Amino acid sequence: MPVYRAKAQAGANIAFIKYWGNLDDALRLPLTNSLSMTLDRATTVTEVAFRPDLAADVLIINGVQQGGAALERVSRHLDHLRARAGLTWRARVLSENSFPTGAGIASSAAAFAALTAAAAAALGLDLSPRELSTYARLGSGSAARSVFGGFVEWVAGARHEDSYAYPIAPPSHWTLVDAVAVVSTAHKAMGSTGGHALASTSPFQPARLAHVHTALAKARSAILARDFHALGEVMELDALAMHAVMMTSRPSLLYWQPGTLAVMHAVRSWREAGIPVYFTIDAGPNVHVITLPEHESWVVAQLQAIPDVREVLVNYPGPGVRLLEREEESSPSPNTTL
Amino acid sequence: MPVYRAKAQAGANIAFIKYWGNLDDALRLPLTNSLSMTLDRATTVTEVAFRPDLAADVLIINGVQQGGAALERVSRHLDHLRARAGLTWRARVLSENSFPTGAGIASSAAAFAALTAAAAAALGLDLSPRELSTYARLGSGSAARSVFGGFVEWVAGARHEDSYAYPIAPPSHWTLVDAVAVVSTAHKAMGSTGGHALASTSPFQPARLAHVHTALAKARSAILARDFHALGEVMELDALAMHAVMMTSRPSLLYWQPGTLAVMHAVRSWREAGIPVYFTIDAGPNVHVITLPEHESWVVAQLQAIPDVREVLVNYPGPGVRLLEREEESSPSPNTTL
Repeated sequence: MPVYRAKAQAGANIAFIKYWGNLDDALRLPLTNSLSMTLDRATTVTEVAFRPDLAADVLIINGVQQGGAALERVSRHLDHLRARAGLTWRARVLSENSFPTGAGIASSAAAFAALTAAAAAALGLDLSPRELSTYARLGSGSAARSVFGGFVEWVAGARHEDSYAYPIAPPSHWTLVDAVAVVSTAHKAMGSTGGHALASTSPFQPARLAHVHTALAKARSAILARDFHALGEVMELDALAMHAVMMTSRPSLLYWQPGTLAVMHAVRSWREAGIPVYFTIDAGPNVHVITLPEHESWVVAQLQAIPDVREVLVNYPGPGVRLLEREEESSPSPNTTL
Repeated sequence: MPVYRAKAQAGANIAFIKYWGNLDDALRLPLTNSLSMTLDRATTVTEVAFRPDLAADVLIINGVQQGGAALERVSRHLDHLRARAGLTWRARVLSENSFPTGAGIASSAAAFAALTAAAAAALGLDLSPRELSTYARLGSGSAARSVFGGFVEWVAGARHEDSYAYPIAPPSHWTLVDAVAVVSTAHKAMGSTGGHALASTSPFQPARLAHVHTALAKARSAILARDFHALGEVMELDALAMHAVMMTSRPSLLYWQPGTLAVMHAVRSWREAGIPVYFTIDAGPNVHVITLPEHESWVVAQLQAIPDVREVLVNYPGPGVRLLEREEESSPSPNTTL
């Protein structure tokens, strides 16, 4: 019996200029470009095996079989790729994260980047990196960025085909340190998908969208020039701007916890003391503390000393999605490579 | 030797729709109207005595003689009233607060309302309540509101004479409970006067100003209709909107502390459980928890049980500024009453 199987690995990413609010919720077309750094240690490895004898898709994450909304989201995603390949076989998807869930690192970006690459390879689809990014986006918006390594910008686009990421600079361009201060691992009351749909209810959403244009230009230039303070200033402001939109949406989304504020104030006090350190915060309570390698050990030790901080996870710029294995002999078009 | 002396008492106030950002910093002309409740227990009693034998103004707050910026601000304020009265005598000002400083209740509103009323009475100035509010505003913007009791709106105005408060409803109209959860009494890094000047640097300030118009109308109607949930919704949103402006100004003002977040989340969880309770937060870390009298004891007990809460101060709607004493025999125009 033929099996079309492949395995891929992708890193999560941390956005310096955030994605919040969609032009089209179903297609996950964002309202603005966003910009991120792909992470090297927070990765997902996903194996996809399409088989003619499966009655339904099967999804196993970290050894636990999933059903409901999680399985449905993956099935719907595989449907896009099955349609493209002209195959209807169901798949068995095995996914493993190298990092704890709920630790302030969005797992869906790495997961859908790896799933898209593995499924496309298993199906023998000859997708360009741009197409891969476009498909990954359908599963999770920020997965579009995790297709590429280093520093990545996702171009908003107004149609499915036009909304994809591209690399600004490779991981080797600039070794930034992302130390995630984990203050809570509780499940979020409102996930990102639901949150995006509320962005337009905030009186501040139009102002943030108008501001993002300038912020992106500053962040891009700062990365290319390796100007840490310029990047830090615009990154920290944009994180606060996104959370301001969240807080003032209806219903109001308050992702911060007491420990979030403790870390934010600590970062600012260290910066006042001359340490190059800034923060950014995704749709959750944990704080990504960005610094330079020569300050990593000091910053991590200080973070660990904050009572509300349970754990500190360190990442550097990482590579884009990689194909790890492929069952050449049984795939539909064996000569196609990623 | 003649002494022109009078003593007045005024309550602090808590803004439901906030004042943040000036059209004119020197005249304290705000960019928008604001709306508050005058407090009954958090009061200031101020005695002013103008004497021909004083070489300089003297300011004593809670028994401690003040110099520097505090004395200068009071002197400048008295100058406006001295100019109006055509008198150059210096004054001895004795002020006592019934509430701790740094406890999340702005003392300057009560202080400048009481100072203005006492000084005007001592000088025998026949000021209407509106004029009194206009003068109080020159010392501290929100003091314009503390001239009146109950529920008060401050009309922005574009000139000194046109920027004053008026009462929407008396204290007896609606017994709301303001339970201030004090999470920190540390001195603020940036006072309100400095903060107002930064408001225009936030990309969100124009959006908040545009939104305040609607918010004021909702708050006014909710107060007149005694609609607690309608008032709570618009009040909480506007507090978050003001803090969003503060956080995204440059430099960024982050007034919240870990305990602030703890109280905010607690209030929301109680509300989800059906308790009528909302929060608002001034330019500081302490949280004003607004509820109805039948829930006061439960809410206060719950607040006291939050580890970060050091103290809970309860206030109800209070009266406007009152003249307590006046040395009739030596005042310039003894038949003038406030």
